[in-house]
Order: sequence, then structure tokens, then C-alpha cells
Amino acid sequence: MKIERHNYLMIPGPTEVEPEALLAMAQPTIPHYGDDWVRINSRIIAKLKKVFQTENDMFIIPGSSSAAMEAAVNAVVEPGTEVLVELSGFLCYRFKEMVESYEGKVVPIEFEWGEPVHPEVVRSTLSANPSIKVMTLIHNVSSTGVTNPAREIAQICQEFDVILICDTVSSMGGIDIKTDEWGLDFCMCGNQKCMQTPPGLGLVSVSEKAWIHMEERKTPVQGWYLNFLNLRRYCRQWSDWHPHGPVTAPTALYAALEVALDHMLEEGLENRFKRHVLNAKALRAGLKAAGIKLFVDNRFASNTITTFIVPDGIDGKKIRKILEDEFKIMISGAPDKIAGRVLRVGHMGVTSARSWILATLTGIIYACNKLGATLDTGKALEAALDTYMSSTN
Amino acid sequence: MKIERHNYLMIPGPTEVEPEALLAMAQPTIPHYGDDWVRINSRIIAKLKKVFQTENDMFIIPGSSSAAMEAAVNAVVEPGTEVLVELSGFLCYRFKEMVESYEGKVVPIEFEWGEPVHPEVVRSTLSANPSIKVMTLIHNVSSTGVTNPAREIAQICQEFDVILICDTVSSMGGIDIKTDEWGLDFCMCGNQKCMQTPPGLGLVSVSEKAWIHMEERKTPVQGWYLNFLNLRRYCRQWSDWHPHGPVTAPTALYAALEVALDHMLEEGLENRFKRHVLNAKALRAGLKAAGIKLFVDNRFASNTITTFIVPDGIDGKKIRKILEDEFKIMISGAPDKIAGRVLRVGHMGVTSARSWILATLTGIIYACNKLGATLDTGKALEAALDTYMSSTN
Repeated sequence: MKIERHNYLMIPGPTEVEPEALLAMAQPTIPHYGDDWVRINSRIIAKLKKVFQTENDMFIIPGSSSAAMEAAVNAVVEPGTEVLVELSGFLCYRFKEMVESYEGKVVPIEFEWGEPVHPEVVRSTLSANPSIKVMTLIHNVSSTGVTNPAREIAQICQEFDVILICDTVSSMGGIDIKTDEWGLDFCMCGNQKCMQTPPGLGLVSVSEKAWIHMEERKTPVQGWYLNFLNLRRYCRQWSDWHPHGPVTAPTALYAALEVALDHMLEEGLENRFKRHVLNAKALRAGLKAAGIKLFVDNRFASNTITTFIVPDGIDGKKIRKILEDEFKIMISGAPDKIAGRVLRVGHMGVTSARSWILATLTGIIYACNKLGATLDTGKALEAALDTYMSSTN
Repeated sequence: MKIERHNYLMIPGPTEVEPEALLAMAQPTIPHYGDDWVRINSRIIAKLKKVFQTENDMFIIPGSSSAAMEAAVNAVVEPGTEVLVELSGFLCYRFKEMVESYEGKVVPIEFEWGEPVHPEVVRSTLSANPSIKVMTLIHNVSSTGVTNPAREIAQICQEFDVILICDTVSSMGGIDIKTDEWGLDFCMCGNQKCMQTPPGLGLVSVSEKAWIHMEERKTPVQGWYLNFLNLRRYCRQWSDWHPHGPVTAPTALYAALEVALDHMLEEGLENRFKRHVLNAKALRAGLKAAGIKLFVDNRFASNTITTFIVPDGIDGKKIRKILEDEFKIMISGAPDKIAGRVLRVGHMGVTSARSWILATLTGIIYACNKLGATLDTGKALEAALDTYMSSTN
């Protein structure tokens, strides 16, 4: 596959990968079994647990983050199981489709796109529907640029003894997520966003409470590949030679992931989270100072994805085209309800960096002005630089 | 992930990957959507169809070949569906587990390990059980080194209007498989054997007959990720921007796959199949001439995996250890019923090559002799070289 041109990925995923991680994939293929592999696998799982801030069981599912989402749904949704599904963005509907595909009964709670999930609505819905057993939540809503208050929602789920499936696809590794402390029963992400690895792995943790729930089901967990009980059975039976589960492991992606994990842990999680906060803050400040309206209130704005409203009278597609053609920077449109109206910038992992933020900010303003706007570049950059200047990082 | 040592993979998978394909993965990550991606995806699918010798729909499932196996089972196995499951080797039991996990009723036919599936047993079983709707078949049995007569079995399935799920995991791209001409309804493999790519993709074709079967089911296909109807729905709906299905595509593995496909098509399928025949023949001739007993009769012996019986009084593990330590060549033990008694050599794609065959043959004899055997190296090499010499290739 020849890459005809490479645009730098300031999109909500996949994101840029460090050259060292890319090169790790070019190593000769190794077998996914035997003593060496057992060592490699445990090493990577241990590092993953640090990033997930968890002592729960961790699995690497060959596939996408959707595979991990579905394995969680399949684990705890039986025919008729009532599931609270929050609908605050595009991929929430994926959870809905998955729950329905396992004949779960969806209890939806809808929010305006750009608004977070309101914990009090979760509380009142669970209170009014005591038969709800499971909730799905997207922590960081890629389609809107909102970060949901997962900690508070998890607390409420615990009060109501509800299993929480929390999708952290675009936040894990970039935003502080305390899987165990918060009580996220299933917590999953892909490897291609803040985990800064080329896509192909679903990373997921499973709590003790979730295991008990699975063991106490009335009907068996469906299927084989996306079945955690089956996965655990093989992991245990084959622990001494094939410890990751029953299927072939995508070893090249593991290799890249380990490099990425090493870099993340060397940076230190706390530093990393602060970096994401700061760069997001600078971008928001810059856009705002230029006269561009942000789509999300600062209180809920994601630190890995920034969304803004396309200035009046300008075609968002043309903004993106100019950025690609003249800056080689790719930003993203928005889906569904907000298509055409909102643009999205990803700044995750590698691209949560001053150089990328400043280049993207400048490019956006340049493109808007080229299309007829009169945005103030100087003010924008000044505001962004002030943010950096006044930071202690 | 640091590779502590690299042993050349003469195992039944994963297998060696060409440096060009490895390096293709080190390219910057590209997005799995948009015009460029639509072009790349169709290009790869078209090349895959050539290797599969099919006009059927082709899917690339992010995950392992087991994901593709399960998607096929899930597509056509409803609760109570009777499924003929041939049990002639280790991974046949995976199909059995999968069918059972979808509440299918397994009608097993067992064969001695090392023996092929006998078409007349398939015929008589289908004849005696007219309610059987589906059959699972492993074309090339990795655990035993047998190639099953898929063409004849497919013919019988057609006569009885049975859907055939044919696993070609360790043969596709190395052994001539005429998906359409033979009538394989689902034909799947991983990308890590004769397809000579680092693992992580399930490649699978779906026949028109299989689609009709899915559409006429009484109960819906289960789940979302491994659900071909769902996959097809998204492929169609999103064809102009996200054509491969609803989830993130492992673009780096696609890149390696395309390089591998290009090399396969440049070589020419017919040349490629002949190469696999010749190298397998040379290895078998050499082992036999050395005085080592082959596990499988020449009539059914696989051209991608050769199995032989560990010489009396010698520990197979020690043979493997010497090969690894002194030759840096990794061969494999055998599972389950034949563990300890049989060793397996993979020669797929890249390693179906004279140099690898001769080095491995020599190494095996060296190891056996070091452990006390008195095998004739000269005769072995002479027999292998005679095979090459008398070939027209």
C-alpha cells in the first residue's frame, strides 16, 4: 500500500504514532506462544494496567475497540436485560445497536449534542427503573468533544448496583481515568488514539463485580470470540504457553503498543494528563480569541478533542481542504446531527504538543480568512502562548 | 517490545514475512476513511479476490482467523441448526465449540489424526441426516499436516444443499483453492500464514448462496461485530467514505497485506502453487531418505506443513531445542493426541523456498544424530536435491 500523501492526523483518531513504535512493527514476526511470548505478554499487560490504573483483569482483543465494546455488552446483557444507554453522541448509538443485538431492553437517556450526560438524570432514571442492571457510557464523546463526568456516574451506578460499561476509546492514556477507584466494571479503548499505536487492538479491563455478574447469568454468554468467560478459560488453561487467549495475537501491534506504553510511563501519567489539559486549553483559548465559537462549554470540553463552530458563511469542507493542501494537516468534520456545523480537532498522545496545536490553530484561522472571514491571527496566537506562558508545565 | 532473539519460523504459523511488507507497516498511520482510503480498500479487496479465486463478497475482519470462522458460523447456525463438523485435527474442535456456542446441533464425524476427511463418510452422513444444513471443514489441517479433499467435499455439500464453511487458514495463498469453482460458501483464512503478513486480519469470502441462507433465517444473526448482515449493511451505507465496514480498520496490517498480495500476484498463483508442491515434495523425500517416518501418507500430505514421527528413543523437544540453539530455526511440536510423537514443519509463502527446506532438513537430521540417531544426511540431501533437479520449475 503506497501512501500517496501523508497528512498529519489532527483528527479524533486514528492519531499520529511515534516513529519508534512504527519501526517496532517492522521487526521480524515472532510466534505468539512459548516462554518468550509468555514473558512479553505479561510485561505488556502489567504496563497496560498502570495506564488503566487498575488491578482488574486486562485483555487485549485482536480487533477494534468495537470488539471490546461488544464483548462487554455480550458479557452482561441477556435477553430482556434492561440497559441504560446514554445518547449524547454518535457512537452511543453503536452501544444501543449492540445491546439490541443481544436482545437487551434499552432504556435511553438523550442529551443535546455538545452537552454532557447529566448525573442527576442518570440517578433519576435508575431510581425510576430499579430493574436496570447495566449502563453504557462513553467517557469522551468523539463526535462532540465532550468529556462526561464518568467518576460521578460510576458512583451512582455503584449505589444502584448497576454494572457500568465505560468506553474510554478517545481518552484512555490522555485523560486521567481511575478505573478501580471510580469503579468502572468494563473499561475499554482502542490502541489508536491516546494509546498512540496503529489500530487493531481492543484493550479492556474487567472488574471482579463483572465476573460475578457473568457467572450468575441465567443464560450463557453468547458466542466464542467476544466471550470473556471463554477468553478467561483459555487464558487460564493455556497460561504457561499461550497466555493471551485462544487466538493468534497480532504480535506486531503488541510490539508497537509496548513502545508506546514505555513512552507513556516514562513521561509519567500525571505529566501526560497535565500536558493534555494544557494543550487543549491553549487551543480553545486561541480559537476563542480569534473569534471562533467553541461548540462545548469549557466546563465539559474534552482535553483530547476540540470542537468548534464553523464561522458563518464559510464551508467547513473548504477549511479542511485548505488545511490539507497547504498545511498537510487533517482535521475532521462532525457526524450526523452536527454535520456541516462543527469541525473537530484531535490532540491525543503524540499530537498533544505545542507545535501541533500552534500549527493547527494558525492553519484554521488562515483557512477561514482565505475563505473570507476576518479572524485575528495575532490575538489567537497571543492567547494560546499566554496559556503556555502562565502554565507551570 | 524488544525481540530477544529471532528464530526463523518454520512452524505452521505465523510464518516469515518479507522485509518489504514489514517495512510497509512502519509508514505513518493513515485514516481509514475518505477518498484515498476508499481507493486503497477497493484495490486490496480486488487483489484478495484474485488470490481467493472468487467473485464472492470479500471481507477483512480486524481480528484473527477465528473471528472469521465465528462470523461464518454465526451467519448460518441458529439454535437447533444441524451442523456436520468433521473432526480430523485440533482446530476442528474450535468449530465444534463455536457451533455449540450458537446452540447449533453438532453431528460429528471423526477421523484418525493424520487421515483425511473421507468424502464417502461425508456423503453417507449427509444422506442419513437430511436435516443437516451446514458443514464445517478444515481444508489444510495444521495439527496433522493433512490436506483434505475440499473440492470433492464441496461437491457433495452442493448435492445435498448444505452450506460449506471452509477454513483455509494454513493453505490459502499456498495451495490451489478455487473458491467459486469448488463452491465454498464461506472461505476464510488469517493473514499470517501463506498470506505472509504479520497476524491480525481475518480474510473471508461469502457466497451468494450464503447470503440467501442468512436472509431466510428464522432468527436474527446474533451480535454486531461478527455479523455479516450488519457488516454488509454498513459497507453499503458507508461505501463512499468508510467502505470496509463499521469499525476502525487496522491500516498498518492492510499496508503489509497489500505488499504481500502484490508479491503473490507478481509471482503468479500457478507458479506459487507449484513452488509449494515442489518444496514440500523435496522435504518429504529428504526426510524419508534419511530414515525418518512421515506422519501422513503422500497422497494427503499438505504442501504447506510437513509432519514427521519423532525417531524412536529421541525426545522431540530436544530436537527442537537444538534446531533453535544451533540453527536458529523453529519447528513445532504437535498438539493433543499426537503430542510428543509428531513434529511439524511449516513451509508457507516465504519459507517455501529451497534454502529454507534444505537448512531445515539438514538441521533436523543433525539434531536427531546429535541425540543418538544414525540418520543418513547424504542420502537425505541427495533425495531432496534430486527432487529439485528432476523438476521443471
